[in-house]
Amino acid sequence: MRATLIYGAGDVRVEDVPDAALREPTDALVRVLRACICGSDLWPYGSKPASEHGDRIGHEFIGVVEDVGAEVSGIATGDLVVAPFVWSDNTCDFCAEGLHTSCRHGGLWAADGVDGGQGEAVRVPQAEGTLVKLPVGEDDALLPSLLTLSDVFPTGHHCAVTAGVSPRTTVTVIGDGAVGLSAVLAANRLGAEQVILMGRHKDRTDLGREFGATDVVAERGQEGVERVRQLTGGDGTHTVLECVGLKPALETAYAVVRDGGVISRVGAPQYAEVPADFGTFMRNITLTGGVAPARAYIEELMPDVLEGTLQPGRVFDRTVGLQEIPDGYRAMAEREALKVMVRP
Amino acid sequence: MRATLIYGAGDVRVEDVPDAALREPTDALVRVLRACICGSDLWPYGSKPASEHGDRIGHEFIGVVEDVGAEVSGIATGDLVVAPFVWSDNTCDFCAEGLHTSCRHGGLWAADGVDGGQGEAVRVPQAEGTLVKLPVGEDDALLPSLLTLSDVFPTGHHCAVTAGVSPRTTVTVIGDGAVGLSAVLAANRLGAEQVILMGRHKDRTDLGREFGATDVVAERGQEGVERVRQLTGGDGTHTVLECVGLKPALETAYAVVRDGGVISRVGAPQYAEVPADFGTFMRNITLTGGVAPARAYIEELMPDVLEGTLQPGRVFDRTVGLQEIPDGYRAMAEREALKVMVRP
Repeated sequence: MRATLIYGAGDVRVEDVPDAALREPTDALVRVLRACICGSDLWPYGSKPASEHGDRIGHEFIGVVEDVGAEVSGIATGDLVVAPFVWSDNTCDFCAEGLHTSCRHGGLWAADGVDGGQGEAVRVPQAEGTLVKLPVGEDDALLPSLLTLSDVFPTGHHCAVTAGVSPRTTVTVIGDGAVGLSAVLAANRLGAEQVILMGRHKDRTDLGREFGATDVVAERGQEGVERVRQLTGGDGTHTVLECVGLKPALETAYAVVRDGGVISRVGAPQYAEVPADFGTFMRNITLTGGVAPARAYIEELMPDVLEGTLQPGRVFDRTVGLQEIPDGYRAMAEREALKVMVRP
Repeated sequence: MRATLIYGAGDVRVEDVPDAALREPTDALVRVLRACICGSDLWPYGSKPASEHGDRIGHEFIGVVEDVGAEVSGIATGDLVVAPFVWSDNTCDFCAEGLHTSCRHGGLWAADGVDGGQGEAVRVPQAEGTLVKLPVGEDDALLPSLLTLSDVFPTGHHCAVTAGVSPRTTVTVIGDGAVGLSAVLAANRLGAEQVILMGRHKDRTDLGREFGATDVVAERGQEGVERVRQLTGGDGTHTVLECVGLKPALETAYAVVRDGGVISRVGAPQYAEVPADFGTFMRNITLTGGVAPARAYIEELMPDVLEGTLQPGRVFDRTVGLQEIPDGYRAMAEREALKVMVRP
């Protein structure tokens, strides 16, 4: 079958790989219907050292079940399913707590002999725990929004939930990428009345406004901080959703958060440490967040998508076929595309 | 009157200063009955650059009201009162949220013309909001425990509360100083069933056991981490109460916290940044805590002290007069004393 491999920075190829096939009785075989490229895929695309052998990549997909192992129940051939970023058994104590990303029997896609999502098919480990059935057909217009349940929308939601966003909190979202816009949508869904989006790409912040941003701050650095302070009577916001992953974004987060407030970070960190000095200590700032246990949120978020109340799939502004995936990476890296959907 | 001044590292003196006196109609004048030396006072005692003029110091005291300004009600001459670390109006939005340390009209003791607690008397700004009446007499045996309501016990409590300690969480307390022991007591009071105390001073960890520690880990560094992991089935604890303030303690905290867990820090940070790399991100670790809004907790904690259910005052193992304060600093700095009470 065909699947995507990354050989190094800027070097993504679609090549022949061994066909996905059942291996364990807890596996399912899924033919990929839609996949996508994640902002976090752009980190290795930007910096991975060149290698002679490629690594599989991709962790967001929906598909059709083609076969299931003997121990899989609740999922059957022909089912349309969404696979959350990170596979998990959905039964261990961590999963029971909603932290599927720390599942005792789970793991990452595209690693340790598990297929990546950017390919024709995927062997899904712990299929019964991992996959969630979608009550739609293969050509449903909702597929793009349902695909976001795999990672990007639950990631924005995780950011808002761990930050404690509620109707009583003001919110700053840092970053106008697909995760930042998803965080805006999630904050709005959770009832926040003031959602300030910090981003400088007008087409993206325009979509952010449609997703519920009440204010847009295009300025960066100290100027951006002052603008958020102006918008909040000098105090900053109760919560800050950091959706970038770079240290300057974290520094901005500390500068715009209100005393006693919470910063949640879901941008995969490209830094080793964060500010935590005496000033942040005196202000009782909390830093939370992390990789999103998407599986924990799918059932909660799906109804709003099925009803059309929320349209998180609007973050997709380009669709490519399997062979065009390398160009999809290029387009996202060059900010020509916000988020690229793959239709194998 | 006599009061304590710090001139630099290792140089604390008790000298004549202008008598404390009412200045604003919201002030009270309080004669100090008991004060104490805080672990955080030891930071300047260890490193403050030498200066020709001394700075006032001390932020924990109980005393007798000698006079009140025209706008002070609820507090009257003759009342016995406890003053929380940080004075505050107790009415602004931050105070209403329980974050008195960010009060819009509050401030620190021993700064900006406000007296320090380690002296004969103190002008208390925002007296009505700051002071809490104590229903005991001047020679009550409970005075030491009531004095801890000023800072050290609420600081341990703040650490446990912000970490989310409950009957369902396991706890590691890092540090066997007075704050660490107070955190043990607070965690126990909040119902934690496993409280692991990391500390290597046996007399202190023995008191920690009496305060509710179920396990003591005397090992430090990697050895200590492994010991905590052993005690928790390999997982670490749901909450970690960091009561030291040094970077190695923070690093230990990240190493012993369970995935999805919370580290709360109340040790005044002697570092600028904390670990927050990809590993902590994948584990969804939260870092919270900060300076304790003691005022927010006094009413909640006082009944247990008055009933004798809790005896946080057991952290005091030495009492000195005003003139002996410099020796009290020395004794605490050299770990000859755990916490020193001052009886002017």
